[in-house]
Amino acid sequence: MADGPKIVTAALIIIGNEILSGRTKDKNMGYIADRLTELGIRMMEVRVVADIPADIVEAVNALRARYNYVFTTGGIGPTHDDITADCIAQAFGVGISEHPEAVKLLSARYKNPADFTEARRRMTRVPHGGVLVENPVSTAPGFRVENVYTFAGIPAVMQAMFESIAHELAGGDPLLSRAVSAFLPEGIIATPLKTIEEDHPGIEAGSYPFQRDGRFGATLVLRSTDKALLDRATEALKAVITELGGEPMEV
Amino acid sequence: MADGPKIVTAALIIIGNEILSGRTKDKNMGYIADRLTELGIRMMEVRVVADIPADIVEAVNALRARYNYVFTTGGIGPTHDDITADCIAQAFGVGISEHPEAVKLLSARYKNPADFTEARRRMTRVPHGGVLVENPVSTAPGFRVENVYTFAGIPAVMQAMFESIAHELAGGDPLLSRAVSAFLPEGIIATPLKTIEEDHPGIEAGSYPFQRDGRFGATLVLRSTDKALLDRATEALKAVITELGGEPMEV
Repeated sequence: MADGPKIVTAALIIIGNEILSGRTKDKNMGYIADRLTELGIRMMEVRVVADIPADIVEAVNALRARYNYVFTTGGIGPTHDDITADCIAQAFGVGISEHPEAVKLLSARYKNPADFTEARRRMTRVPHGGVLVENPVSTAPGFRVENVYTFAGIPAVMQAMFESIAHELAGGDPLLSRAVSAFLPEGIIATPLKTIEEDHPGIEAGSYPFQRDGRFGATLVLRSTDKALLDRATEALKAVITELGGEPMEV
Repeated sequence: MADGPKIVTAALIIIGNEILSGRTKDKNMGYIADRLTELGIRMMEVRVVADIPADIVEAVNALRARYNYVFTTGGIGPTHDDITADCIAQAFGVGISEHPEAVKLLSARYKNPADFTEARRRMTRVPHGGVLVENPVSTAPGFRVENVYTFAGIPAVMQAMFESIAHELAGGDPLLSRAVSAFLPEGIIATPLKTIEEDHPGIEAGSYPFQRDGRFGATLVLRSTDKALLDRATEALKAVITELGGEPMEV
């Protein structure tokens, strides 16, 4: 019997009161979601948590046990509300101290010792056992402890950190997808879509309604790790849409 | 002794594989965050979960016990992957069936019985004990069970549902905030900001770094339920920024 598809999973923890209050609109979830999908890794859960140590520790421990990779964003800057590194150390039950390599990097950046403030020294603190993640944008590094990657929250910095470690993420079989839109209400296409999924084991079907120019429609997405199967199911879906009087538009 | 400020909390559960895969970029979190802040309600946690019943039920039960209000978005349409209503029923340990009022609403919309398809009838299913939430955009209602509100995922519909129940949310003392930006690196302002927080008990201070036109700066946010205290702390913060050679900009 052939092996089933290889599934690799991930979760994201977004840390920061500013996201929860609405002051800052998160831009990291969409980026990481897109990149993980490209890499054949399925994001299974995202949590946005406040700057409360117990909440952060709980989220890290719940998710690192459950998924192959966990990413965190936010809370590794120099201010007193930047508590992510301490929380990661606590979650793993390890100590935390200044990482010699991080001290070297920041010393090189702040050549005048007066500029290398106590607050900036905070950014060199890494949980014991942690490996640095390069920050080509603003020097102060992220880090990885076991399967948990800790990134900055500023989108440009987070993206640079993600890209610096992307090559070391082991993806699963890529989940291929094809999407077909139609100006057919979901209430009309729902039952035929379910039938297509049932008729093609190995296909996952999703329906995402939209409203455009005052008309209701749906984008129907078929997913599978098997390309030939996906192509057959997509043809069947297009035929059904046409049958229902709609015009299938591949998107 | 005077009572402390009245704190009212909330959490949001965003349901749907399409958010986790990156296909759809969530727009509901920012809206709900802004509106809750305006209403004096503190959002404490957000979870984005997949279309997996056990994951949805776990999130609902974890969060409804912990916070005053829980909101869910997504998964109440007519298709087979719309499983939110069933999961809410399961989380509360109650049955689910067609709600007579919802049937009446949709019957009026789909006057031709052939248009009132089996799939659309799914949208009338409400957990027992649930109260309908009006949907002025596309008729099919959301619902509330105890402290859990279930909304649609399409932003326009979600927003209309939120606004139709906003008047019944009991807010706490509003958390007032003032924000001051400066082109000062966080590493310079971090320690003085901590001192301001310590010198003004009842103030929460946050620092949100940004990069603009190639320069690094930070938005410093002070929050309190006490306006006079907030004003004093803001003046102190502006003085410190000026002292450090920065130009405080209230934002």
